[in-house]
Amino acid sequence: MQVELAKDFLPKLKEQIENNDKVSVLASMVELYANDICEIMYELDDSQAIYILEIFDDETAADIISNLEPVYRKNIFKKLETNKIALKFKYIDSDDAVDILNDIPTKEREEIISYIDDPEKVSYIIDLLHYEPNCAGGIMAKELIKANINWGISQCIDEIRRQAEKVDKIHSIYVVDDKDYLLGRVSLKKIILSNANMKIKDIYETEEFFYVESYKSKDDVAKIMEEQDLEAIPVVNVQGKLLGRITIDDVVDVIKERAELEQQLMSGISGNAEEYDSVWLQSRVRLPWLLVGMIGGLMGAKFIGLFEADLALIPAMAFFIPLITATGGNVGIQSSTVVVQSLANKSNFETGLTKRLGNLLLVGLLNGLVISLVVFLFNIALGDSLSLAIVVSISLLCVVMLSSIMGTITPIVLNKFGINPALASGPFITTANDLLGLGVYFIIAHSLLQI
Amino acid sequence: MQVELAKDFLPKLKEQIENNDKVSVLASMVELYANDICEIMYELDDSQAIYILEIFDDETAADIISNLEPVYRKNIFKKLETNKIALKFKYIDSDDAVDILNDIPTKEREEIISYIDDPEKVSYIIDLLHYEPNCAGGIMAKELIKANINWGISQCIDEIRRQAEKVDKIHSIYVVDDKDYLLGRVSLKKIILSNANMKIKDIYETEEFFYVESYKSKDDVAKIMEEQDLEAIPVVNVQGKLLGRITIDDVVDVIKERAELEQQLMSGISGNAEEYDSVWLQSRVRLPWLLVGMIGGLMGAKFIGLFEADLALIPAMAFFIPLITATGGNVGIQSSTVVVQSLANKSNFETGLTKRLGNLLLVGLLNGLVISLVVFLFNIALGDSLSLAIVVSISLLCVVMLSSIMGTITPIVLNKFGINPALASGPFITTANDLLGLGVYFIIAHSLLQI
Repeated sequence: MQVELAKDFLPKLKEQIENNDKVSVLASMVELYANDICEIMYELDDSQAIYILEIFDDETAADIISNLEPVYRKNIFKKLETNKIALKFKYIDSDDAVDILNDIPTKEREEIISYIDDPEKVSYIIDLLHYEPNCAGGIMAKELIKANINWGISQCIDEIRRQAEKVDKIHSIYVVDDKDYLLGRVSLKKIILSNANMKIKDIYETEEFFYVESYKSKDDVAKIMEEQDLEAIPVVNVQGKLLGRITIDDVVDVIKERAELEQQLMSGISGNAEEYDSVWLQSRVRLPWLLVGMIGGLMGAKFIGLFEADLALIPAMAFFIPLITATGGNVGIQSSTVVVQSLANKSNFETGLTKRLGNLLLVGLLNGLVISLVVFLFNIALGDSLSLAIVVSISLLCVVMLSSIMGTITPIVLNKFGINPALASGPFITTANDLLGLGVYFIIAHSLLQI
Repeated sequence: MQVELAKDFLPKLKEQIENNDKVSVLASMVELYANDICEIMYELDDSQAIYILEIFDDETAADIISNLEPVYRKNIFKKLETNKIALKFKYIDSDDAVDILNDIPTKEREEIISYIDDPEKVSYIIDLLHYEPNCAGGIMAKELIKANINWGISQCIDEIRRQAEKVDKIHSIYVVDDKDYLLGRVSLKKIILSNANMKIKDIYETEEFFYVESYKSKDDVAKIMEEQDLEAIPVVNVQGKLLGRITIDDVVDVIKERAELEQQLMSGISGNAEEYDSVWLQSRVRLPWLLVGMIGGLMGAKFIGLFEADLALIPAMAFFIPLITATGGNVGIQSSTVVVQSLANKSNFETGLTKRLGNLLLVGLLNGLVISLVVFLFNIALGDSLSLAIVVSISLLCVVMLSSIMGTITPIVLNKFGINPALASGPFITTANDLLGLGVYFIIAHSLLQI
């Protein structure tokens, strides 16, 4: 079902737009999903992109707008009339609407809201805007079906009919009392299988029923929904009143976002950067860790400086600096990645740290021995001095084992102090291991070569 | 709702198990989810863990078994009676059952299947076992509700009633013809809102209706379900006959798995390794990239060896080797991560490579200038030789820009050849950049210091 676009698709489309040939433009995109249309828009001039957006009905346009990259959307909004933008919001769920509105300046946001011609939607949006984007309240939608516990099933079905257009996917009907306190849920399946003159109170479920408070972090929400295989979860305030619901598609976004962020942390990018962002922003999020690495490098330079006399006598000592530092860095990152991942799937218990460390040391010993041996054979085969070859191999073994330990302990310690352990898998561990490796190598060399 | 366990929970539990105090054991775990109980089992001896598993009813035990780590589960299965294991499979959906069975040796698998006392479940499992685990057929479940297009709604409701216990979450009813060809779907909402004497053919939907063929990769399935915000998708064979359905919770697993695997690739771990795996396996998946790094390091050593005479004259040249290689590595990984992530969200188009490279070069230039300048000031302040300070800073600037380019191009090239671009963010790019950095540094030093 994935549509592959022909090579000449774009030039043709541009021509059709130029000729204001609406029929052909629409025809060429009839098979495409909103996501694909977004990708096409990125390739067009702004005026052509707006032409595309305006050619579709408001509902399709709303779908496209929801799928645009935030930075791009912000830019396109500036060139669209506010009342036209507002028309699309009728078809965007309150949670997505708030995500979009949160990304644009306050003045434009207020203008758009004032033009939305649907009082219920407006009240939903205004209500949602005050939640932190990172908590359950910030990702919930207000659209849901709720039923009073005293209703009959037929009354509940009437409510479903009334809301049918606004609530796309129902999952469950949430059962509340007269004061809107959440009591339980009824599945659509149960409603279908029940007699029409039964009451909600006879069939609603309270067991295996999950909900979250609005202040819970979105990571916590994702965890519960994942563990319990839920497709939707109701959100309540601290008093237990029903506020909204979170659906699994939002949680999928949370999971993907977290994975991306973790990758970026691991690679020393502080903050969310995408290729779309400005050069200045991209530069700024990368610089901090580069500077940390730089300070490490300068410290390394000062440290090696202590052995200047040794180096002058045996310049060959310098040859193996990159081998030592690179191996230490690689081992450290391997170890920390495994630990970070197992911390992410963390349990309520402290699993035996000693056993974990013991295992990792064994892995380090095994890999260290292999590498040291191979390097030793190479060095001998290439006719390097025997004593230097011994120094290099002993240093490598020590570095591999020390880096294993560092790579294991650092994320655990960071985690203990409430810092995201993924930080430890990035330039931090590489820098620390570089210094560690240099220390081990030069001290061993200095002692064994008896300079 | 997350349960925090008291510090003395485990010792108490062990005591209760020792005393065979079933009531207390059950009472202490009544609030816990299956996942938590798994974590507890990992902390116990095998015999204690089996005690826990046998104390629960089959349905709860099935839930716990589904949540265990595969390696651990395999081990526990060896110590349980086959017929007891088989009893739990009645409560495990066919897709999860197959995942579990795929992890254990053929003989045990066949034994368990022969003991399952539910012919329909057995036929489901046997049918699913022959699919590749990485394709749509490998993650689908057979449990679903289907309706013949000629049925009336009341007949459809009867079918839902008949299957109610077996199909936990319904989402949609799939509409087929007499030969089981998939024609469309009906939502539960629509059934509730329709008149009981209407026919399926009057209300079923074919628009905005998505399905996948059984041979499609699970990543493709995840992509469609994510993009279309689907909670379930039907799976058909090449002829279009309905085979099963995939639910969003399986796709969440696919997404998480892919993210973990990518992280591991980035950190130079080839193959899926978890802390639970044996020392031998853990060592084996780490060694290949360590050896690549080692070969890079040995090549670096040979390269530096070419400048032995220079080093003998100016040993201080060696001081800055770690600074140069570390900076190159860090920049390379930062760039490649951004590119890898944007490739993962790839479009149908080739977005302008030149613009992308231009941008990255600008970012590189900016960051390179900052770092070179800071390092220069440091070196001067610390009283190093002016000419060496100039050489180091010019080299740094070149290395940052070259590494940016390498980090950008490598994943794009790998992707072109169908290799997972995440590979490029790991030790591969670090090793290449180490060599690049050394080359730049020593050549500039050799020329400028006019040795």
